[in-house]
Amino acid sequence: MFKKNFKQARTRAVFLTTCLAASVVNAATDTTYPDAAASNPATMGWMVGSPPPPDRIIRFADGSYFKFPAMRWSVSNFRQLMPTTNVSRGLNAPVPLAQALRTDIDKLTFTPLGSKQPMTWEQSLAANYTDGIVVLHRGKIVYERYFGVLNPQGQHAAMSMTKSVVGTMGAMLVADGTLDANKHIADYVPELAKSAFGNATLRQVLDMTTGLDYSEDYADPDAEVWKHSMAGNPLPKPKGYTGPQTYMEYLQTVQPLGEHGKAFAYKTVNTDVLGWVIARVTGRNVAQLLSEKIWQRLGAEQSAYFTVDSIGTPFAGGGLNTGLRDMARFGEMIRNEGQYLGQQIVPKSVIDDIRAGGDKAAFAKAGYDLLKGGSYRDMWWVTHNPDGAFMARGVYGQRTYIDPKAEMVIVRYASNPVASNAANDPVTIPAFEAVAQLLMKHPD
Amino acid sequence: MFKKNFKQARTRAVFLTTCLAASVVNAATDTTYPDAAASNPATMGWMVGSPPPPDRIIRFADGSYFKFPAMRWSVSNFRQLMPTTNVSRGLNAPVPLAQALRTDIDKLTFTPLGSKQPMTWEQSLAANYTDGIVVLHRGKIVYERYFGVLNPQGQHAAMSMTKSVVGTMGAMLVADGTLDANKHIADYVPELAKSAFGNATLRQVLDMTTGLDYSEDYADPDAEVWKHSMAGNPLPKPKGYTGPQTYMEYLQTVQPLGEHGKAFAYKTVNTDVLGWVIARVTGRNVAQLLSEKIWQRLGAEQSAYFTVDSIGTPFAGGGLNTGLRDMARFGEMIRNEGQYLGQQIVPKSVIDDIRAGGDKAAFAKAGYDLLKGGSYRDMWWVTHNPDGAFMARGVYGQRTYIDPKAEMVIVRYASNPVASNAANDPVTIPAFEAVAQLLMKHPD
Repeated sequence: MFKKNFKQARTRAVFLTTCLAASVVNAATDTTYPDAAASNPATMGWMVGSPPPPDRIIRFADGSYFKFPAMRWSVSNFRQLMPTTNVSRGLNAPVPLAQALRTDIDKLTFTPLGSKQPMTWEQSLAANYTDGIVVLHRGKIVYERYFGVLNPQGQHAAMSMTKSVVGTMGAMLVADGTLDANKHIADYVPELAKSAFGNATLRQVLDMTTGLDYSEDYADPDAEVWKHSMAGNPLPKPKGYTGPQTYMEYLQTVQPLGEHGKAFAYKTVNTDVLGWVIARVTGRNVAQLLSEKIWQRLGAEQSAYFTVDSIGTPFAGGGLNTGLRDMARFGEMIRNEGQYLGQQIVPKSVIDDIRAGGDKAAFAKAGYDLLKGGSYRDMWWVTHNPDGAFMARGVYGQRTYIDPKAEMVIVRYASNPVASNAANDPVTIPAFEAVAQLLMKHPD
Repeated sequence: MFKKNFKQARTRAVFLTTCLAASVVNAATDTTYPDAAASNPATMGWMVGSPPPPDRIIRFADGSYFKFPAMRWSVSNFRQLMPTTNVSRGLNAPVPLAQALRTDIDKLTFTPLGSKQPMTWEQSLAANYTDGIVVLHRGKIVYERYFGVLNPQGQHAAMSMTKSVVGTMGAMLVADGTLDANKHIADYVPELAKSAFGNATLRQVLDMTTGLDYSEDYADPDAEVWKHSMAGNPLPKPKGYTGPQTYMEYLQTVQPLGEHGKAFAYKTVNTDVLGWVIARVTGRNVAQLLSEKIWQRLGAEQSAYFTVDSIGTPFAGGGLNTGLRDMARFGEMIRNEGQYLGQQIVPKSVIDDIRAGGDKAAFAKAGYDLLKGGSYRDMWWVTHNPDGAFMARGVYGQRTYIDPKAEMVIVRYASNPVASNAANDPVTIPAFEAVAQLLMKHPD
């Protein structure tokens, strides 16, 4: 049962944002990978030495950077591989997160979905190739660990968790009236009129119910996702490449397939369209707006950054990189109905809208067996479980999990060799729920 | 007289670190440029819009980024153009610089060298295409201005001021016995044994008295400086490029010319060699070491960053980018004999060594008419003027000027169309000296 679900979920894996064909082919086959210890990017010595040994050099140009296990180093070092733009934290003092560390989490046991073999929380960290994980309870750090080459001063790729951050900003602009969710994308960005997005509503883009002739099937080398990635920066352009040179150029080429508004279909390009709409109406790209509206108000420890394409457009669909604790600050602000450090950073109505969720029937059509009964709203995954948990998810195991009832936020940065979150959901979902139960039963 | 000196100095201009042939050709001819207001990168609207208008897009790949006036935007946005690595400020609260702002500096007058026409300080800022300037007196900000696209939250290319930062770290390692200035480069980096650097001493590299068949004459398209820049990242590689792919590969190709130790000859490659030596002996590249030994101890407001080549090697000769005030913190620490915030960050003996200066006779041979009687030590320019002023200098007008007698530090970030500092020295030198005089006469 576990195996069946796992395989189905894996086949349907559509969370992947940017990735090379090689790692996808791996994900689609039954390749086994070295475990977390054997693939530890610190002990493997990537990019250590002057110069590093030839077989420990990671380069952007040859695409090696996104192949496992080198990818385990890359996700903590995107800035060294491609151009980026800052999400300034501002110049004020960081506001430390309070700590109330617990020792009872590591030994917590749970049973992975589809398995009969219990596992401890501590074991789950290695099983999910965790690079860093922090658990907040009532805003205090109760658990925090770093592995591999990530540390508290480092930054890690949020991958598709970027979408939830950008979706939140989109919903904020809807809430303050700058954007009208019922308007069509072409109303905001006329350049997209002839593309599939032209007659989609902003709401359909925000909830990813657009009908697009765009495949994120990473096992298919002809899938459109490769063209999107090549147009921007995550993928190096092959010799003689003559395709679109920017994200914006690529988005104009996306053609319709099926009807908008009928089914949830997770496609990264929706977020890049949202990023374009945001830039057009605010005069600020998503990195600038994130700094101004949110990051500078979080008491963040570090500036974050976005990868950018050749004309400086931030990769709204997956380009954010942050410190682990700073993403926890963001999650805690969301959990706290948009309030943080005495400020209402995101309107409560936006959080209410996310938590209420999206169209469950549309979501069901996408067939996420491990997320049955869930929905997708404003680029957040909403479980509709008894705790009302909702989350941001990113390829290779990135997760921001907000459990309102348990007053808990978990942020995990990871470098799982299997792209799809569905691959780690059987371990992740019960593990996170077990911590929530623990915190509710024994809050102190 | 002014014209003659200016032309000579310009011809000999050897401060240029990274630059495209186009701007050099400009520098070598008598091209006149739009003034600071007409070339203001903010009002020109570079990279504003989604997408920006075609004639306001700045790209790395076509080299447009380093041509004036686009360069005025680029020097505040290197991170958007190429891969970089962080110089972490750490996670502690920044320590604000005290302020004691004065209103008597703007109207201060002085006479540019070789001119009879007095100029006000305020006029000098535009004359030098200033992007940001801060004056510290006894550690307090007495004057601070930003222009164009630089602001207190931004970061600007330090260009060759990077050399003085790296040179300081080199001198620190000599002071603590990690390095022996009398040893040969090949003793530390055997890969350089067959290059010109092999039999040069570390001291000769630190003071740039190596004899190298390496031209930094930017008017010559065959000059070696272009090859160095292409091997690393500042210059895009032309189609079909088959040369060295990294700074380290390039350095091994540099051939000797003349004797080491006889004459000062300003050549960027010396600093990259020093960076390699530092990396080899400490196991940390210059960005990592700068963070650990200095940046985290300055109470810096922002993390700084280095541009890196395709294997992550920081550009030691010119790749540092910092906030304006953070470079002022660095300068103030140097002025204060290495002490800052109650810590001895750089040994006093290192500062003493820099201030005592290098070989004046060797320096004289290089023919810097506007720096007569000066010397070069540990990659700092030492004036030996009555105040004992010394400085870091970077192409296009970057300057960190330390006047011990006046208890003054000036840091200027700029984007002067003419590469050589010699072009702005006739205005800069008397302007900075005038402020020093003012502060000594009227300290409060």
